[in-house]
Amino acid sequence: MYTGPLRALIDELGRLPGIGPKSAQRIAFHVLKIPGEDAGRLAAAILAVKERTTLCSRCFNVAEAGELCDVCSDERRDPTVLCVVEDPRDIVAVERTQQFRGRYHVLQGALNPLEGVGPDQLRVRELLERVGAEGAKEVILCTNPNLEGEATAMYLARMLGPLEVTVTRIASGLPVGGDLEYADELTLGRALEGRRQVTA
Amino acid sequence: MYTGPLRALIDELGRLPGIGPKSAQRIAFHVLKIPGEDAGRLAAAILAVKERTTLCSRCFNVAEAGELCDVCSDERRDPTVLCVVEDPRDIVAVERTQQFRGRYHVLQGALNPLEGVGPDQLRVRELLERVGAEGAKEVILCTNPNLEGEATAMYLARMLGPLEVTVTRIASGLPVGGDLEYADELTLGRALEGRRQVTA
Repeated sequence: MYTGPLRALIDELGRLPGIGPKSAQRIAFHVLKIPGEDAGRLAAAILAVKERTTLCSRCFNVAEAGELCDVCSDERRDPTVLCVVEDPRDIVAVERTQQFRGRYHVLQGALNPLEGVGPDQLRVRELLERVGAEGAKEVILCTNPNLEGEATAMYLARMLGPLEVTVTRIASGLPVGGDLEYADELTLGRALEGRRQVTA
Repeated sequence: MYTGPLRALIDELGRLPGIGPKSAQRIAFHVLKIPGEDAGRLAAAILAVKERTTLCSRCFNVAEAGELCDVCSDERRDPTVLCVVEDPRDIVAVERTQQFRGRYHVLQGALNPLEGVGPDQLRVRELLERVGAEGAKEVILCTNPNLEGEATAMYLARMLGPLEVTVTRIASGLPVGGDLEYADELTLGRALEGRRQVTA
């Protein structure tokens, strides 16, 4: 129905996650209405995030290009406790509990054989190297409490077993089948408190 | 929690209509993941829609810069029937019914004294001029069937009264208090069919 630049923008917006045709249309018309500088700032922010954001070379959290992430560059963080998460967004969820003062390791996903995600697609090798190199005493497996997350935790527990490190898993205070990102602080905090050692 | 370019993008996205903090975060991470050229295309589409889209100089529908809109530049459309809508998106809704072959006039809003929208903020003067200049025989008042839309229709009916033109209002087959944009084709089509003359 729409043509030209408006159609193009609606199409591009419709490719974003959680944006249906109606939302794309509404946002496109919103962009039409707002001042040019606001639209310019949005476009610039999209380009900047691609140009200036990379993964932390240590833990694979998001970081500004050429630097360690905020957590890794904070010297007050305890290097002997590593919290392993699937996704950088999960770090935000854990940080909100204010119960964790160690460092993170972001796997960049979870094991999912059906979608072709095996250990080589995740940052597993780097995790094993870090545990040796950084003198970690505890690794908290903080993957999602769903099928893929549990399988990933079990796999990591097996891989970490031979190393001299305590491996723990967050307590399943979280609703099973849920998504860590949407947990409230209290529930996730309790899950962190109740973590138990894993024996593979 | 996030810093730098990622924070900036989440903030910008959060300003868009219907995008809450969680959605903004999800979309920002999506943008991080997609290829640079896809992000570039999105940013370019935002800029292009601002640069290359204007309002049609005749009916105030959206149009590519320097041109009449698709409807006005289509010579097969009947110039003697004018459908008055609040918003360009309403044109899409009416077009979907495939029951209207005339032209449009977009008011760019509805009367809303509380928000300071009076006749001077809408394209009312231009509508009255068009009715004389283009030899319109019928004006269909197709504003939303809610408070502001009804008030706008009544006001326009009064203004158009002295002119030699039939003024009609779409039938209230649409749920009252609703929004024209979300009507399904059948309901809106029936409302168009059942339009009745307005006597101010």
